[in-house]
Order: sequence, then C-alpha cells, then structure tokens
Amino acid sequence: MDTSTMKGDCSVPSFKAAELNIKLSMDPVNHHDVFTFGTVFTNHMLTIEWDASEGWQRPMIRPFENLPLHPACSSLHYGVQLFEGLKAYRGDDNRLRLFRPMLNMERMVRSAKRACLPIFEPSELLECIRKLVEVDQDWIPRSDTASLYIRPTLISTEPILSVRKPGRALLFVIMSLAGSFYQATAKGLSLWADAKYTRAWQGGTGDCKMGGNYGGGLVAQSEAEDNGCQQVLWLYGEDHQITEAGTLNIFVHWINEDGEEELATPPLNGIILAGVNRQSILELTRQWGEFKVTERYLNMAQLCGALKQGRVKQVFGSGTACMICSVGEIIYMGEHLHIPCQDKRTQLSARILKQLTDIQYGRTPSDWTFLV
Amino acid sequence: MDTSTMKGDCSVPSFKAAELNIKLSMDPVNHHDVFTFGTVFTNHMLTIEWDASEGWQRPMIRPFENLPLHPACSSLHYGVQLFEGLKAYRGDDNRLRLFRPMLNMERMVRSAKRACLPIFEPSELLECIRKLVEVDQDWIPRSDTASLYIRPTLISTEPILSVRKPGRALLFVIMSLAGSFYQATAKGLSLWADAKYTRAWQGGTGDCKMGGNYGGGLVAQSEAEDNGCQQVLWLYGEDHQITEAGTLNIFVHWINEDGEEELATPPLNGIILAGVNRQSILELTRQWGEFKVTERYLNMAQLCGALKQGRVKQVFGSGTACMICSVGEIIYMGEHLHIPCQDKRTQLSARILKQLTDIQYGRTPSDWTFLV
Repeated sequence: MDTSTMKGDCSVPSFKAAELNIKLSMDPVNHHDVFTFGTVFTNHMLTIEWDASEGWQRPMIRPFENLPLHPACSSLHYGVQLFEGLKAYRGDDNRLRLFRPMLNMERMVRSAKRACLPIFEPSELLECIRKLVEVDQDWIPRSDTASLYIRPTLISTEPILSVRKPGRALLFVIMSLAGSFYQATAKGLSLWADAKYTRAWQGGTGDCKMGGNYGGGLVAQSEAEDNGCQQVLWLYGEDHQITEAGTLNIFVHWINEDGEEELATPPLNGIILAGVNRQSILELTRQWGEFKVTERYLNMAQLCGALKQGRVKQVFGSGTACMICSVGEIIYMGEHLHIPCQDKRTQLSARILKQLTDIQYGRTPSDWTFLV
Repeated sequence: MDTSTMKGDCSVPSFKAAELNIKLSMDPVNHHDVFTFGTVFTNHMLTIEWDASEGWQRPMIRPFENLPLHPACSSLHYGVQLFEGLKAYRGDDNRLRLFRPMLNMERMVRSAKRACLPIFEPSELLECIRKLVEVDQDWIPRSDTASLYIRPTLISTEPILSVRKPGRALLFVIMSLAGSFYQATAKGLSLWADAKYTRAWQGGTGDCKMGGNYGGGLVAQSEAEDNGCQQVLWLYGEDHQITEAGTLNIFVHWINEDGEEELATPPLNGIILAGVNRQSILELTRQWGEFKVTERYLNMAQLCGALKQGRVKQVFGSGTACMICSVGEIIYMGEHLHIPCQDKRTQLSARILKQLTDIQYGRTPSDWTFLV
C-alpha cells in the first residue's frame, strides 16, 4: 500500500521543526528610529540545506551572516530562486502575531514546484519561523506602524553550469525592520503605466514569487521614478489590461458599467500573484455584503472611461510590505489620470486597513492571526 | 564641453584591465578524461566589484573560491543577475583562441542595461578574460572536441529587500571544462514542444541573458526529460511560433512555401536571444550565396506541413555549449515528428560546423578569432 497517497501532504519529505538546532548570537538588539525598509536585519537567521540524495537536513537558527556560495550555483546564473514575505506584529497585549502565515507557506511550496526546487511541509517551516521570531522578538517594537518583515527564501546551490533541475538547495529565512512603507502617500501612490514592458505572461512564472519576475521589472521601475512615479502599473495585452502595480495587487472601487457599486481586482489567471492581503480583502468585503466584490478583467479604457464619467470611487494596491496604499495618480500614454478619494475619512481602503490592522495587532480576535 | 558624448562608448566608466591584480593559486592543474559539462572548474576566477558611489574597483584574478554573499542581496531574491558564455580553444598550432568574443562582451553590456546593472567597456573585460585564460591555459587540452567554457557573470550584491536598482554589484568570470556537449546526438536531438509554458514574451527579458529566463524553464525541461526528450522547443502565441530550443537558436533548412531552398531562423523580435553562433551561421551561409537565408517567423503548422510534403531538409540548433546540433525528432501535441537528414555526410549543419571549428581551432585564418 502506498502510504504517500494515503497521508496526502503530511508525507512530503520535509525537514522537521522538532529537530531545530539553535546557536545564539552574542550581538545586542539594535533599536532604530529611522531606517530604510529591508536594510536593518535581526541577529539571527534560519537555514535548512537540502540535497537530492540526503533530502532535507536539520534546520538551524544561527547568527546572521554571509552565505558562502559556489560561484557556479544556479541561483546566481539561472534565477533558480524564490521568496516569500510576511510580517510579525507586536499587539497591544504585547503578544507577537503573524497574519495568515500558512497562506505564505503554501504559496512558497507552489513556487518551489514551479522552480523545480524541493518542497516541504508548510507547517514545519512555519514552526521554524515561529521559533526564529521568538529568538529575535526584542527586535519588534511596540508600535502601531512598526513590524518585523520576515523573508523566507529558497535558492538552488547546485554548482553546475548546465541548465537543469537542482540537486542542492538552501532554504533560509532572514528578518528585517519594517515601518510605514510609503512615507509620502498622503496624496496617494503615483503609478507609471507603460505597455512597453510586460511583467508576466501566460505560461510564465508571474503567479509565483520567483526572482526573475522582479529583476526583469527594474528598468520599468527606473523609468517610473524618472517620470516622478513611485511604482509601475503593469499592463498586459493589446487592450492594456490592468494586472498589478510594482509589488502590489490592484483593486478598483467604482460604479461599474452596469451601475452597480463594485470592488474589482484582476482574476488569478496565471499572470497575477495570489497576494495574502488580496485574498483577505476579497474575503473581508464579501463578508460585509455591502457591494459587489469581483475578480474580473479590467483594462485601461474601462478605467479611463469610468474616471471621465466620475464612476471611480478609489483605486488602491495591496501588498505585504505596504499593506494597503491608495493610488492618487496614474500616468498613461502621456496623460495624468487623477484618481479620486484621497480623503482617509471616506476611503474604502482606510476602512479595510483598520479592520486588518485591528486583527494584526490583536485588537480584534480572529482566526487569521497566528500567535508566536 | 561634455567629453562623455564626444568619446562615445570609450568614456563609459569602466574598470581597467591595465590595473588587473593577479594572485595565483597553488593548486595543481587537474586533467579529466570524463566529466560532466559545467562541473569542473579551473583554479582561478576574475572578480570585479562595483558600487554606485565608487564605481568599478580594480579587477582581480584570484584562486577560485566561494563567494561570501549577504543573504539579502537582490541577485538571490529578485534575479538581478546575468551571464555570458563563450569558449577558448587550443588550436592545431597550440595557440589559444576565442571566437568572436566582442559579441559576447557587447551582449553582456546590453543585458546589464536591461537588468539595471552597471555597464563597462567591453574591450576592458575582454582583456581581463584574456589574462584569466592565459593564467589557466594548462587546463585547455589539445583536442578537436575539448575546449574551456568561459562564464562571465554579473550579479547585484545590494543587500536590501526593496525591489530597486542595485547600488552594488559583482562581475565575476569562472571557467569550466567542456567536451562534446551532447554525447547522444547520433540520432539527433529530440525536442519537446508544448505550448503550456512560454520562455519569453514581448516586453520581457527573453533577448537578454538574464537568469530568470532560464529558471522559469526548468519545469518544462523536466517535462521534456520525462517524455524522453533532451530539450524543450519553446513555442509562442496562438499560432505556436517556433522560437528557441532550450538554450539553442533554431534553424530550419527546407524548401519553403514558394519552392525556394531556404535556411530560416526566427527574427530578433525581442523574444529571441541574439546568439553568436546564430549570427555566424547567418553570415557564413549568406556569404556562400547558395540558397536563401532568412530571419522569418516559423510556426508549427508550417513545419508540420513541410514535413508531410517532404520539404524539410534539416532542423538544427546552435548555441555556445553545443555549437551546432541536428534535431532528429520533435514531439508536438502527442505526435512524434521525425525530422530527416541525420546523415553527417549530407547535413548542412555538419558543413557549417566544419567551417566554424576550422576557424575556432585555427585551421582557417579568420578575423572571427581572437588570439589569447
């Protein structure tokens, strides 16, 4: 009898959190009032090695340090790499919480399959991360805006120049301080929509958090900044479908073509990242039952038409780093499209943000939180 | 007066080969009779560091060793990385030659622009590589089939989790032994053509040697192997255009729809890599003037039709690692397409291969060779 099919995912060959080895750093905890997102790291990291013959090795929490990588390893040549992003929050009750972390763990396994990297049992990684957060818990300030950004990463360490499925890999988790992501969002984010560059396409890797999706977009991001915008609004196809913005899923809150109030976001059709906040916003607003909530195609012509007719209530983006950001302007084909509703008292995004942060900081009990 | 515009590319801020620092390894040269491509590396590597404020540092040739990388560097998270591939040959006259290396250097600069990585003066890198080959010259055997594969690589070393233009980078060059790439090509390569996966798309990075292009293809490569094929034949669009195969440019030698003998390869339309051998094959056969040589769209329906009508003379691929490989079979929509002409005495590819290798091994004088 094949037990692997009986036990389902439980029988995935995986590292075990119970075997975690912890070696503590002697360095002190550093508190920072001012810092750039993603540059200040905690004292410890989690590392788990894998090779095809031995499988996963024992997980280790150890002092944060450089990774000695063979110069031929295929993570450096062929982008055989993927990552995740989630946050740890210190609640009003001083307890530490993660927000729906199993969604990240499961997405990481999906990315690993797409990248031909080894899979693992999601709950085992979550338990290792829980311990890592525990070890570095003093890095997390008691603050409504601060949190700790957790970055699980999985890379090939196969030292071979042939393009092939790796036989060695390294899973590591590092953590960095996170404050308010977009300091200057009072006026709302400004987006640069230019169809010249494409982020992702059918049959590609745009629905996974593989590195190549991001490096390929740096040139467009540079152009956006040169044009005074903060992020790229990625378009797709001849009809300039709206897909994502930089590292954000996009939502349009409007009166749709049929006169209905609707919150719309592009469907998970292979070129859209299945964001955890995206899913949470959809679930939350569907629970409210106050307006139509839809995963549907949206193109620039539809948005421009709705803006002209005054049907757009708000456009906003969601992502782990920024949570929810209102969009104030889109530059498209030389035109500055002004997006209404940058008043936080009436924004749908502000209402959603409050409900989500109330959950994340423990003010509202929810099964979306995971206690560290 | 702005001298940067006067001098053109000469004034690109670049490292200087004249400042090369060489630290020799004490390890012996190892000769290998049997080895896997891309796994046996020479004793030395070239490294050149860059940062946004200081620019390029002094180039160094030093013993081959692991790279100590900050775990947050964006080459490991966002695929901010690119590479090149070229070979050094030991000629019948015992002299070492590179084949059109400036084409690789210039393509590397194009990839660097696309990846938002720093550019440099192509001839300065070539001179550094020349010295690296000279230092490790005893690794190159005197053999008609052996060569040294040279792998220039440029990665971001910016230790930040924001997706942004890197402020630090590392250019490194490693070299590995190369023999006959495809051992089992007597019957010709077998290719797996499945439109489910897409390698590259308009507005993406498919015309650059960025890492993400390759890691995204591993799943398809695995499926190809599971179906008994050696490489993927990448298709594009609704009409299943033929683009590339694995890491090879694709050529079709046939009697075309108009009854003309033609050597055809897909045009450089943004989703095709501008291969050095591709360019050389086009230039060489155009010089012959014996048949039509065309960069044109080719789709699977056209190829299948021509195969049925007996109009296909040969299909072959070209790449640095394999040089030229004849294709023996394509599996497409469940059908095994048998490709004719696997007889080396009559193959166009064999005739081209001989002319190219005669140049590479110094038997035919040519300005395509670069003496080390």
